[in-house]
This record gives sequence, C-alpha cells and structure tokens, in this order.
Amino acid sequence: MTEARRRFARYHPDFLLLAVDLLGTYVFAVEGAMTAIRANLDILGLLVLSFATALGGGIIRDMLIGAVPPNSIRDWRYGATALAGGGTVFFFYQFFQNVPQPLMITLDAAGLGLFAVAGAEKALEFGINPLIAVLMGGVTGVGGGTIRDVLLAQIPAVLRTDVYAAAALAGAIVVVVGIRIKLPRGLVMSVGAAACFVLRMVAVWQHWNLPRVIAH
Amino acid sequence: MTEARRRFARYHPDFLLLAVDLLGTYVFAVEGAMTAIRANLDILGLLVLSFATALGGGIIRDMLIGAVPPNSIRDWRYGATALAGGGTVFFFYQFFQNVPQPLMITLDAAGLGLFAVAGAEKALEFGINPLIAVLMGGVTGVGGGTIRDVLLAQIPAVLRTDVYAAAALAGAIVVVVGIRIKLPRGLVMSVGAAACFVLRMVAVWQHWNLPRVIAH
Amino acid sequence: MTEARRRFARYHPDFLLLAVDLLGTYVFAVEGAMTAIRANLDILGLLVLSFATALGGGIIRDMLIGAVPPNSIRDWRYGATALAGGGTVFFFYQFFQNVPQPLMITLDAAGLGLFAVAGAEKALEFGINPLIAVLMGGVTGVGGGTIRDVLLAQIPAVLRTDVYAAAALAGAIVVVVGIRIKLPRGLVMSVGAAACFVLRMVAVWQHWNLPRVIAH
Repeated sequence: MTEARRRFARYHPDFLLLAVDLLGTYVFAVEGAMTAIRANLDILGLLVLSFATALGGGIIRDMLIGAVPPNSIRDWRYGATALAGGGTVFFFYQFFQNVPQPLMITLDAAGLGLFAVAGAEKALEFGINPLIAVLMGGVTGVGGGTIRDVLLAQIPAVLRTDVYAAAALAGAIVVVVGIRIKLPRGLVMSVGAAACFVLRMVAVWQHWNLPRVIAH
Repeated sequence: MTEARRRFARYHPDFLLLAVDLLGTYVFAVEGAMTAIRANLDILGLLVLSFATALGGGIIRDMLIGAVPPNSIRDWRYGATALAGGGTVFFFYQFFQNVPQPLMITLDAAGLGLFAVAGAEKALEFGINPLIAVLMGGVTGVGGGTIRDVLLAQIPAVLRTDVYAAAALAGAIVVVVGIRIKLPRGLVMSVGAAACFVLRMVAVWQHWNLPRVIAH
Repeated sequence: MTEARRRFARYHPDFLLLAVDLLGTYVFAVEGAMTAIRANLDILGLLVLSFATALGGGIIRDMLIGAVPPNSIRDWRYGATALAGGGTVFFFYQFFQNVPQPLMITLDAAGLGLFAVAGAEKALEFGINPLIAVLMGGVTGVGGGTIRDVLLAQIPAVLRTDVYAAAALAGAIVVVVGIRIKLPRGLVMSVGAAACFVLRMVAVWQHWNLPRVIAH
C-alpha cells in the first residue's frame, strides 16, 4: 500500500462520502418500502424489502470480491438508515405517495450513479480485474432491486425494461477506465456518477429501451 | 479472547447444544420436504428443499458474518440430518401427513426459537454490532423458509403472514440485550428461545398479525 | 501440502483443463441467452442470464467452500467467455435456433459432467467433507440453471424434471469415492464426467424421471 493509499484508508470514508452514501441508501429503502406496501406486505415484510433493496447490491458485491463481512453488516449506520427509510414510509405513507414521480426518479437515478461508481471503485481496490469491476459496479447499483423483485416472485424489472442497469454499467466503465489511466480518483468518480445519472434521466425522458431479439 | 471465552470455545458445541441444534434441523427439513411433495417435486427436489429449508438460514448468516465455510458445510452432521429429514418424509409420507398440525407448529416454533438465539449469539461472537446481530438472529430463523419459497417461485410466507419473523427477532433481541448487560449466556439464550416460542405460539392461537399499510 | 499437491497447484489449471472449462462455460452461457430471448428480455437481461447460468453454480460453490473471491470473479476469462456466449446468441440467434436439439442436449450433458466433477474435486481440495463435496459437485452443475430460473420467477427445472441434478451427483460421487481410495485424479475425474454424461444422455433418451411422492 502506498502512502497515498494508506492515507486514503485512514480517512475513508470521509464525512461527505458517508453522507451521500447513506442518502442513497435511504432513497433505495424508501422505494423498497413503497413496493412492499403495493404488494400488501406487513410491517416486517416492508422492513425486509427496505433493507434488501437498499443494501442487497452492496452486500452481494462485497461477498463476491471477498470484502467479508460486507460493509453494511459491519457498520450499523447502513442498516439503521435502511430501516429508517422503511419506518418513515410505514408511518408517513400518505406523504411519500404524494412525492412527485419525477422527483423520485431523479433521486433514484442519483442513488444509482453513486452506488455504481462506488461499487466499481471498491472492486478495483480489492484487486478485481477491470471487466469484473465494471460488472460489480452494475451489481451494486441494481442488485438490491433484483433481490426485491425475486422476493416478490417477479422477473426483475432491470432485466427487461429501460436503460437502468446499462446506465450503472456506463458509470462503472468511466470509473474503471479513468482509474486505469490514472486520472484523479475524485474526478473520475464524479464524472462516472454524473454520466450514469444523465444517461438514466435522458433514457426515462426519451423512453429509450435496449434492443432485444424477437423470438419466433 | 478471555479465559472464559477460550473455555467456551474449547467445549463448544457441547453435546446437548448439538443435539438440540440437529433436532431443529430435522424438524425444518421435514417441513421443507412436505412442501416439496405438495409442489409435486421429485425425490431430488425434495432433498434440495429439505437441505435449503433446514440449513439455508444458518448458511446465509455465516456467509454474512464471515464465518466461512459455513458451519453446515464444514460439519457433515448437519447435511446428513437435513437429508435424513427429507428421506424419512419420502419413505414415510403417510405417517408425517398424519402428524397433528398443532404438534408440527409447536416443533416448528421450538426450532425457530433455537435458531434465532443461536444466530444472534454467533453474530455477537464474530464481533457484529447489536442491530445487525438481531437481524442475523432473524435471518437464521427464517432464511431457510425464505429460500424454500423463492425456489417455489412464491412470495416468502414470512414477509406477509403472521407473527413469525417477529418472534425470531424478539428472541434475538433478548439475547443481544442480555449479553450486552452481561447476564449469563446460558440463561439469556434459554429466555430468548422461550420468548420466541411463546410469542409464536400465542400469535398462532390468537391469530395475531402484524400491522400493514393499505395501498390505495 | 505435499510435493505432489504443490506441483499440481503450480501447473494448475493446465491449458487443456482451462479450454474444456471455458467451453462448458460457453455452452451454458448460450443456453442462458436462448432462455432470455424466449422470456423477451433485452440485451442486458440476456447477458445477465448468460453470466448467471454459466458461472452461477461455480460462484455459489466457491463462496460456500471459502474460495473467495470466486474463481470466475478473479479470472476475467470466465466472465469474458460467458459474455461472448451471450453476445454471439444476440447477433446470431437465427443460427443458434437452428442448432439441432440433440446436439445442444449432448453439449449440455458434457458441460454438466465437467462442472460436476470439477466442483466435487475443488471442494475436496478445500478440505470439505465427502458428503458436502458431493453436494458441491451437484451445486456446480445445476446452480447456474437454478439462478436463471429463479430470475425468471419459475420453479427451477432441475427440481422437478428428469435425471439432471442426479446425473451431476452421480459424477460427483465417482470423484469423491475415487479420490478417497486414492485412484489417480485424472482417471477419476474422466470416469466421473463420463458417468454423468452417459447417465444424462440415457435418461433423456429413455425418458427417465426420478420417483416422487403423490400428495393427496
């Protein structure tokens, strides 16, 4: 570990990064809880879906890259934030239901971008090769939503609709390429998250979908 | 590790604890096998469901807290007990079908209590924080049934019905709080398992359900 | 580690073994992609299903036996092969659709045999007991297909139809028994893979199914 890396490790996660990460966790937890209510789950099912949606992607990534126990198991603030997201929806469902759809989509896209770049960066730090690091960025972004849909016995939405996972992968590619050509880490991660965010928003706005093969 | 902990580690698992644990494994395996038959699975699907229902919760917990390889992968007696549970159902289905429902519910509640307190205690031993240790107790208790339901492409029953996971969490809370305030471990685990058991039985008897938000 | 084992470790995986392994990966990835197209997934869902079907079984095995990060996360060639399998199906679906069914079944049976014996052998190398090592062979062979089916919200085909997982387990048993009685590793693995392959092919040809209990 170089001196720079050691310093990074000592100060990491800094307050801003942690705050942004917990905000993303909260947003994803709220979405999991809203889905749970629509599926007629009870308070406990709601909390499980909040937890799984918010933290599932990061947990899968950490287990795959060997960062065990996963960050959100080791640090109680992640679990607490996820449960807080579920709890506020339980008590203030009326309020959350009236949040304008575009605002939710915007917050979700922001969370997606953050999770994707953080996931790719962490995979690289653990010595994972670039191809898989990109996939780990994608997994971090969409893994939670995938678990949520599997628990509801539905085909995961990310597998069939919209440019969602693709936006996460785009952000992760920016990070992996940028770090490989030794651009500053902070810059690379900001640009990657922005790329994911913009791609996702434009895709929603323009109704972009990925190509598919028609079976016959 | 203190002298007391070292001694605990040296003698653990003692014969009684192991016997009780394997009994819980057997009961859960039987339930998995009964579900498999109702879903028209063949002998192999039946054994898979026995194994997953009986050992899935503990395996998820062990992988999340970093106890790898999981206990039931390392110790052949767990796998053998789970397969024995499935095998006896396959050959004596008639008999198991005639076991009175209240007896099955009672045995299941006992297994749930045991798994929940054992899961929470193990998480604490591995240095997991109290909040997540409680959740790990819950995961140990209901994880196997959740995997079983996912494999059958159904929404896990624990997410939507009854006071089941809630009872597991209650037992885990007793353990985590009790150990934090340094009560004797054996006492704490017994009280926790009893609390889970009683809560579950009363909930079945009184048809308790958790509150839910009605979507509209 | 004995001198013999050390030598094995130094040369492993040799070129032939790697080539065969990647070929199996490619075949399973193609099957995952074909299923994705039939389920009307987009290009990304197709690649996810290719990756999960081809590598899911080995990833679960590696995580359970403590070989973390899993081989296919550490070595980019596995992920690249899986994505190549998905990509060629996307661009040449017409061609793959016209591949005769018996050829696909034959290739699949070959891949199954290879995965099963490789999985059992690796579990033994990691000090896993014989019973679980056999199950790990089965998991390696059918885990990917199980994940694929769960993602499509279907009951995994291996749980209810044909002699498929049973063939994988048979191959794994040959390996575990053979290595225990100290027969040459290469011989044991070849015979195990052949046993799995032949059993699977005969089962398809003769429409063999495993027994099941009829619920009433």
